[in-house]
Amino acid sequence: MSNTPKFAVIGGGSWATAIAKMLCVNVDQIAWYMRNTYAIEHLKLQKHNPNYLSSVEFDTKKLILTNDINEAVAYADYVIFAIPSAFLSDELEKLTVSLDDKVIFSAIKGIVPETSLIVGEHFHEKYDIDYDNIGVITGPCHAEEVALERLSYLTIACGSEKKATIMAQNLNSHYIKTKISDDIVGTEYAAMLKNIYAIAAGMAHGLGYGDNFQALLMSNAIREMKKFIRKVHKMKRNINDSAYLGDLLVTGYSIFSRNRMFGNMIGKGYTVKSAMMEMSMVAEGYYAAKSAWELNQEYKAKTPIIDAVHSILYEGGDAKQVFKDLTDKLD
Amino acid sequence: MSNTPKFAVIGGGSWATAIAKMLCVNVDQIAWYMRNTYAIEHLKLQKHNPNYLSSVEFDTKKLILTNDINEAVAYADYVIFAIPSAFLSDELEKLTVSLDDKVIFSAIKGIVPETSLIVGEHFHEKYDIDYDNIGVITGPCHAEEVALERLSYLTIACGSEKKATIMAQNLNSHYIKTKISDDIVGTEYAAMLKNIYAIAAGMAHGLGYGDNFQALLMSNAIREMKKFIRKVHKMKRNINDSAYLGDLLVTGYSIFSRNRMFGNMIGKGYTVKSAMMEMSMVAEGYYAAKSAWELNQEYKAKTPIIDAVHSILYEGGDAKQVFKDLTDKLD
Repeated sequence: MSNTPKFAVIGGGSWATAIAKMLCVNVDQIAWYMRNTYAIEHLKLQKHNPNYLSSVEFDTKKLILTNDINEAVAYADYVIFAIPSAFLSDELEKLTVSLDDKVIFSAIKGIVPETSLIVGEHFHEKYDIDYDNIGVITGPCHAEEVALERLSYLTIACGSEKKATIMAQNLNSHYIKTKISDDIVGTEYAAMLKNIYAIAAGMAHGLGYGDNFQALLMSNAIREMKKFIRKVHKMKRNINDSAYLGDLLVTGYSIFSRNRMFGNMIGKGYTVKSAMMEMSMVAEGYYAAKSAWELNQEYKAKTPIIDAVHSILYEGGDAKQVFKDLTDKLD
Repeated sequence: MSNTPKFAVIGGGSWATAIAKMLCVNVDQIAWYMRNTYAIEHLKLQKHNPNYLSSVEFDTKKLILTNDINEAVAYADYVIFAIPSAFLSDELEKLTVSLDDKVIFSAIKGIVPETSLIVGEHFHEKYDIDYDNIGVITGPCHAEEVALERLSYLTIACGSEKKATIMAQNLNSHYIKTKISDDIVGTEYAAMLKNIYAIAAGMAHGLGYGDNFQALLMSNAIREMKKFIRKVHKMKRNINDSAYLGDLLVTGYSIFSRNRMFGNMIGKGYTVKSAMMEMSMVAEGYYAAKSAWELNQEYKAKTPIIDAVHSILYEGGDAKQVFKDLTDKLD
């Protein structure tokens, strides 16, 4: 790998678009894979992604746009996955290019439904990639605010400090500040768990609970997250660092969060099925709630909020009653 | 003191009105002192406080309304102060009744400007009241949501567990859940400090920073609060408990918070003086920023957010530049 590594972004959604934008500040060329050929043609002609962050203008000379994932991966030293976790397995099945010499960064905030693994674990276990070559890009960071160039902070976690630093340097700009971390597992679990808590926040709102309860819920959520992650991977971490608490807050308090919206619909009385049909895409937290709950049957952390969301989404629990019971378990 | 103690509420504002409402669920009679005689007459006739939480209807048979603070204090075993900290000294000067046998609860979220002490310390040092007779009522709890009977949680801290329990029992209801704590100093400092962070959140918003930065700011604020409180009073506490983190969040994320509004105006370019003139009441955080900063000259906790707010409010710092510098100190 050369000193100026090559980057590929995998995905055509808003977070992928934001990451492509960030990289283009620093590098001369990136490969960018997306399935949607119409979006690729539009980007080439109009310099904008038609579907996501459409206000962002790209210098298309910098973009190697392709709808062949192998072309993008073959080009790059660092491959950044930014697609919904539900599509990851399907995309990876298309791969004929080896991942052996690649550094894989996950910008996916979810769990791989087929394996119930977070993305880093999935690459490690299924593709035998060393943790030194696995990293995570995490917020607190709404893609929409990257589009607006509003100051945002990212945490870049990787088994290799050097590789974390390289990724961080290439995402940095006048509107992006980065810090590095060695907690790949913890930051990725936090990014996954926060979506469950955002669903809970949405449910509470839909059920008519107010701001006082929302603050109480978030204060309980971060304590719950700490207990859960400590069971998964015990190490010294400050759960109030921005990659954990900050990421929880930006999602839990965002009215734009798909997860919060999904929860809100259920709180308002939609069935899980109809709420899913109303959303163009299934919220990451829907899968996360199942996996986290199942994992926790083994870990046995005290997770009343995850349990409540799981009960409503998967056990037919009545949202109003489940939340009434939940309120007695919080403090 | 009998087994069913008598309560007095001192103050006519929204938080005092909310506390009076909560108590009236549980007790047959309370004394309620407010300076405004018009409000008293209106309450007697119309059953509503005309100025604050005017939707709340009182059973006036339960209220001993008075504009004589001595009458209210003489009546009660437990005296709850819920007035702006800036008025506390003046009100206490009116006292001819002794506080010796009283249990004093502070529902004031600020610092006494004349002494730079939190309210509990002020009563302890100036009135020689034992910490067993001093307590704190803290949120996360907007008074407005108490009026709507939206589920809210309070933390009741007192040197005496028994007295904390008594106060908690008398505030409990179908929409109020309480927990008790022995951290009088920490909870009261948290309630004071959070107002400074709410000013910072408002300033950031006024300056055009977005939700990503707000989440980052809150994640830094709670870490800063932890460091500061640990210097003031070291004990085992979980800073993510609702009395600390929850209270910070409900204020920092509230567009109704006076402190946040005050900061927002300054962020938008108002001078400190003109922002103060625009507000009908000085925000608690204005005094808190001065006292916390001065205290910290001795404690030397790392408090970049408090320093930034202090610089803008008291040292003529330019909000835009001070925040630009601050962004380099956060992570």
